[in-house]
Amino acid sequence: MTGDVKPIINGYTGRILHVDLTRGMIETEEPSATFYRRYVGGNGLIAYYLLRDVPRGADPLGPENRLVIAAGLLTGIPLAGSGRNHMGAKSPLTGGYGESDAGGYFGAEMRRAGFDALVISGAAARPVYLWLHDGVAELRPADHLWGMFTLDCEAAIRRELGESRVRTAAIGPGGERLVRYACVMNDVRHAAGRCGLGAVMGAKKLKAIAALGRTPVPVADETGLRALARWMRDHWAEKAQRRHELGTPGDVLDLNPRGVLPTRNFQDGYFEGAEKISGEAMRDTILIDRGGCFACPIRCKRVVRVDDAEYHVDPGYGGPEYETIAAFGSNCGVDDLRAIAKANELCGAYGLDTISTGMTISFAMECFERGLLTRADTDGLELRFGHAAAMVELTRRIGERVGLGDLLAEGPARAAARIGPAAQEFALTVKGQPLPMHECRARHAQALGYAVSPIGADHVHNFWDESLARTPLSEDLQGLGIYEAVPPTELNAHKVRAYVFRTVWRWIANHAGLCVFVPWSREQTVDLVRAATGWDTNVWELRKACERSLTLARLFNLREGLSRADDILPARMAQPHVTRSISEQPVRPEALSEAVTLYYGMMGWDPQTGVPTPIKLDELDIGWARDALPRA
Amino acid sequence: MTGDVKPIINGYTGRILHVDLTRGMIETEEPSATFYRRYVGGNGLIAYYLLRDVPRGADPLGPENRLVIAAGLLTGIPLAGSGRNHMGAKSPLTGGYGESDAGGYFGAEMRRAGFDALVISGAAARPVYLWLHDGVAELRPADHLWGMFTLDCEAAIRRELGESRVRTAAIGPGGERLVRYACVMNDVRHAAGRCGLGAVMGAKKLKAIAALGRTPVPVADETGLRALARWMRDHWAEKAQRRHELGTPGDVLDLNPRGVLPTRNFQDGYFEGAEKISGEAMRDTILIDRGGCFACPIRCKRVVRVDDAEYHVDPGYGGPEYETIAAFGSNCGVDDLRAIAKANELCGAYGLDTISTGMTISFAMECFERGLLTRADTDGLELRFGHAAAMVELTRRIGERVGLGDLLAEGPARAAARIGPAAQEFALTVKGQPLPMHECRARHAQALGYAVSPIGADHVHNFWDESLARTPLSEDLQGLGIYEAVPPTELNAHKVRAYVFRTVWRWIANHAGLCVFVPWSREQTVDLVRAATGWDTNVWELRKACERSLTLARLFNLREGLSRADDILPARMAQPHVTRSISEQPVRPEALSEAVTLYYGMMGWDPQTGVPTPIKLDELDIGWARDALPRA
Repeated sequence: MTGDVKPIINGYTGRILHVDLTRGMIETEEPSATFYRRYVGGNGLIAYYLLRDVPRGADPLGPENRLVIAAGLLTGIPLAGSGRNHMGAKSPLTGGYGESDAGGYFGAEMRRAGFDALVISGAAARPVYLWLHDGVAELRPADHLWGMFTLDCEAAIRRELGESRVRTAAIGPGGERLVRYACVMNDVRHAAGRCGLGAVMGAKKLKAIAALGRTPVPVADETGLRALARWMRDHWAEKAQRRHELGTPGDVLDLNPRGVLPTRNFQDGYFEGAEKISGEAMRDTILIDRGGCFACPIRCKRVVRVDDAEYHVDPGYGGPEYETIAAFGSNCGVDDLRAIAKANELCGAYGLDTISTGMTISFAMECFERGLLTRADTDGLELRFGHAAAMVELTRRIGERVGLGDLLAEGPARAAARIGPAAQEFALTVKGQPLPMHECRARHAQALGYAVSPIGADHVHNFWDESLARTPLSEDLQGLGIYEAVPPTELNAHKVRAYVFRTVWRWIANHAGLCVFVPWSREQTVDLVRAATGWDTNVWELRKACERSLTLARLFNLREGLSRADDILPARMAQPHVTRSISEQPVRPEALSEAVTLYYGMMGWDPQTGVPTPIKLDELDIGWARDALPRA
Repeated sequence: MTGDVKPIINGYTGRILHVDLTRGMIETEEPSATFYRRYVGGNGLIAYYLLRDVPRGADPLGPENRLVIAAGLLTGIPLAGSGRNHMGAKSPLTGGYGESDAGGYFGAEMRRAGFDALVISGAAARPVYLWLHDGVAELRPADHLWGMFTLDCEAAIRRELGESRVRTAAIGPGGERLVRYACVMNDVRHAAGRCGLGAVMGAKKLKAIAALGRTPVPVADETGLRALARWMRDHWAEKAQRRHELGTPGDVLDLNPRGVLPTRNFQDGYFEGAEKISGEAMRDTILIDRGGCFACPIRCKRVVRVDDAEYHVDPGYGGPEYETIAAFGSNCGVDDLRAIAKANELCGAYGLDTISTGMTISFAMECFERGLLTRADTDGLELRFGHAAAMVELTRRIGERVGLGDLLAEGPARAAARIGPAAQEFALTVKGQPLPMHECRARHAQALGYAVSPIGADHVHNFWDESLARTPLSEDLQGLGIYEAVPPTELNAHKVRAYVFRTVWRWIANHAGLCVFVPWSREQTVDLVRAATGWDTNVWELRKACERSLTLARLFNLREGLSRADDILPARMAQPHVTRSISEQPVRPEALSEAVTLYYGMMGWDPQTGVPTPIKLDELDIGWARDALPRA
C-alpha cells in the first residue's frame, strides 16, 4: 500500500521556453501536470520563475534579470476575454516584483505557436528578436529594427517573415533607451504598461517577440467550453454594453463627480474640464473605430484620428484608455483630447507607460509651478498645469531622453531625489511606481491596495470600494463571505477582510489570462478552468493558487530588500484635496498602518513584518521558497 | 452612496428555541439571514452558542451548562444522507467543547416541527421532557419516565401523546446517573455517543425531547434539489453497495489485516478472532434486518436478534456498528458476536457511549490482568481480556453505577487517577475522551486528528491516511490542492496540509447535517446547499464557515483551560504493538508535536500555543469571540 508513493496527478501539461540571450541558447521545458496545477498560468508562472531564477540582488537592467512572458491558462482558447497575457521581471522602477499584463492578440498567438511561457535570461550583444512559430523558437538579428517605433517595427517584421498575420510584443525607442517605465506593446496598441518591463527588454537587447501559431490550445472538454463561450456571446451585452460603446474612457464622467479623477498631480479629485476629455466627447469628435482583443465581442478599445494644424495622430496606435486620458488630461490639468491622443500615440510609438509618463510630467509641472524647476531646466518649456503642448513635447523628450526628458525618464521618485528634498512630496509613487488614476482618498480599500500591492501602486489587482457600500451586498460578495457593508472612506477590519477575499480572487483572472471586463461570474470562471483542463477544481483550490503566487511575489520583494516601510502611501494622501472636496477623506497613516497589519495577518504573513511564515509556505506547498525568507 | 450601510443580505432564516429549564421559560429566536450564512447549521450553531452562552468555568453537570441540539442546514430535506443532527455541550468527560452527532429520524422531525436548533439552559427541579410539534414547544413532566430504558421511554411518550410517529432523543438510566460518557439516543437506535451529552441531559433532569412535524423544510430551488436527490437515488449503489450489505461492521475485515483494529486495549492492532466478529459473520448469524435514517436508501444500520441460553438481545435496539464491535470485541479480546450484541443492547438501553464503555472496560481488564484491580474490586468478576460474560456484566454495572461500575462510570482517566499512578498508562484517552476504534499508529494523520480534535480523540472529523497514499491521487484530493502522496505512517508537512484541507472540508457535513456515508461529491454538496438556501455560495465560503466554527471550538477549549499540553496522545501510541507488527509505526511525540505546530499555524492560530490570533478572528468575522482569548 505504501510502496508506490509518487506526486502523480493527471491533467494539462504544456511547454515553457527558456532563452539565454547571452549564449544564444534555447531550451524547452515540459513541466509536470502537478506544476501546472500548482502555478496555473499567467502571473502564477511569473511569480514562480522570478523567485526561482532571478538571483538575489540582480540588477534589473543587467543580464541576470529574467523576463517572463506567460500566457494565462485560458489564453488563446476562443472565448470572450481570453486574449490576455502577462509579463514579469524584476522592476527597474521598484527594484521588486514587476508584472504587467496586456490584451490584444500576441498572447493567443504565442500559445497557439506552442508556448505557455517564455523565460528569458542574459543579454544579447547585438539587438535580436525572437520568432516563435509551430513549436519552434529562433533568435534573429534585429539591428535593422533597433530605433524603430513599434508600428514600424511590427510592419518590418511581418515583411521580413512574409507573414502578415504575425503578432508581436515589442519595445520602442523608450525601452531601448532604458526609460525606467518603458512598456512592452502587444500588437502596437496593447500595453503591458507598468513596472518598466520595456526597459528590461531593452537592456537585454531584445527588440521584439514575434509569434504565429496554427495549433489550437488543447481543451479537455470542448463541448462544455463551447457552451460557456456561446453563453457569453449571447449575454455579454447585458453587462458590458457601456464598455463596448464608450470603452474605458466612459469612466471619466463616472468617476469625476465622485472625486475619484486625479487632477493636477493629485491635488484634487475633481476636474472642471472632465466633460471635454470624456468618453462621450471622444465618441463625438476623434473616434473613428473600435478595437478589441482575441475572440472578444466587447471591443472596448478605441481607435482615434487627429489631423489638424496642431496635432497629427496616427490611428495605427489605437486610442487612449481611461488611465491615459486621466494621466495626461485631468492629472496634467489638460482638457484637450487631441493633445491627450497625441501623447498616447507617442507613448505607443516610443513604448512608454502612459500612467507613469503622465504622472512624471504632472510631477514636473508641479515642480515647475512651485519653482523647483525653471525654464532653464525645461529648455524653455512653460511647464504649467494645463499646457497641453508642453505636455506633448515633454512626452517626446522622455522617449528621446533629451534635456529634462532624460532626467524624467528615471521616474518621479528618482528625479525628485536629484531635484532636491522639496520635490519629494510631489513624487506620488508607492515603491517608485507612480499612482494610477484612481483617487484613493475617496476609496480606502484602494488606498490599502496601493500600499500593499507587490508591484507598488496598482489599479488592476485592487478592490473597488463602492460595491461594498451597496446594500443588499451583491451575491458575489456574499459568496466571498462578506456580509457587512462598509462606506468607501472607511478602513475597518471588515473592509480589510473584504479586500483580502476579493483581491485574492481577482488574481485568478491573472492566472487564467481572463479579462476582468468580460462579465464572467465566479462560478463560470471555475467552470472555464474545469473545461479547459479537466481538473476537478473549485473556487477554493484556485484561491489557494492565488495566495501562493501573491506569497511568492511578497517573498521576491522581501528578498530584494523591500519591507513594511515600503508599504505606505505618499504623504499627500494624508491631506485633503486642495480645491474642491466631494467625498474624499484623507487616509490617516495610522489607520492605514493598522489595515496593513490586518492584511499581512489575514494573508498568513507575520502581522508586524509582512514576512510569510514558514508554516504558510508549507500550507501553500511552496517549501522550496523558504530560501527567500529574510534571515533572522 | 454611503448613507445606507447595513449588514443586510438575503436568504434563509429559521427559528432557534431557547429553553430555560430552571425557570420553565421558552423563547423563540429568529436570527438574521446573515447569521445563518455565517454559522450555517449543525456544529456551526453549536460552536456559536456554546462559546456565547456557556459561562467561563461552568460545571458541565451544573445548570449553567448549555445543551444545544442543532439540525444541519439540510436536515429534514428529503434526500439521501440528510437524517443527521448534532448535539453539543461543555463535556463532562473532557471539560471542553463537547459535540456529537447522530442519524435516525429525530433531527428531521425536529426541523419539520419548526426548529433549527434548541439551546437548553438551567436544570429542572423534577424530570421533564420537551415536546415539539407544529412550531410549538412545551415542557411536560417526566417523573413517570425517569429510570426507564430508552425503548420503553419512547413507547411511553408515544402512548401519552397518542402519536405513534413521534420521534425522540432520550437518555437512559446511564444519563440519569451522570455516567460521564452517557449518550443521547435518537429513536432508541441512533447514538450521539461521544462527550457525555447524556449526562448533561441527566443533570438538567431532561429525560427526552419528542418531536413531530408536518411542515416541510423550506427549499429555495425545489427543482434543483429534486434533481440532486434523484441522481443519488439512481447512483448511490455504485459507491455504497457494500455499506448497504454489510454496514459499518464490514470494516472489521478491512481494517484488521492492515493493523488498524484496536485489540486488547490498544496493545495490538490485529485481532486473531476478527473473522468471528466481522460484518460477514453478523450477516450469517444474528442479523435479521437492516435499519436506516430519514430519506436514505443505503440503510447501513443493522438489526440483530439473539435468543439463546446465554444472551437475549432485543432487536428494538438495532445492532452494533463497527465502532461498537471493535470496542467490545477485539479491544476487549472478545470474539463472541452475541456478547457484543448484548453489550450494544445494554448501551442502547442505559444510554451509554459504546466506544467509551468498551474502552473503559478494556482499561479495567488491563488493570486486572496487571494486578491493579483484584477480584475484590470487581466483586468476583474474572475481568480478563476475552471474558465475554464479564464484559457484558460490567457494562450493566456501569449503567447501574454499582460496584466497580460506579468508579468506571467516571471514564478511564478519572478511574485511573483513583486506582493509582500505575494505572495511568492503561487509560487511553485524549483530553479524557477514550480513543475510538482506529489504531492511529498505522495512520499518522489520524494520530494528529486524535491529538487536535476539539472533542478529544475522535474518529468522525478526521482524515483517513490511506487515500493519501494511493496514486494517482483522487480527484477529490487534487481539488483540495493536494498533489503529493504520503505513506500512512509518515507525518510530514504535506500530510499536515492534507489533514487541514480535508478535515476543514469534512466539517461541512456536520454543518449541513449530511451523512458522510452517502457519496455526495464536493461539488454536489455545494449544489445541495445552494439549492436548499438560494445562496450563491461555493466551496470556499463553506470552508470559511468550517474554519470559523473550528476556531470557535478551539476558543471554547482555551477559555475552559485546555491548552497545547492537552493536544497529545497517550504514551502507548509511542510504543510498538505488543504481539504482531503489521504496518504500524510508533507515533514519536516529537514528530507529533511538530505536526501540531504546523496544524496550529495552518489554521491561522499561534503555532506555539494554538491560540487563534485576533487577526484570524477578524478574518473569520468573529471579532465578538475575542473575549474568549486567553488574557496575556
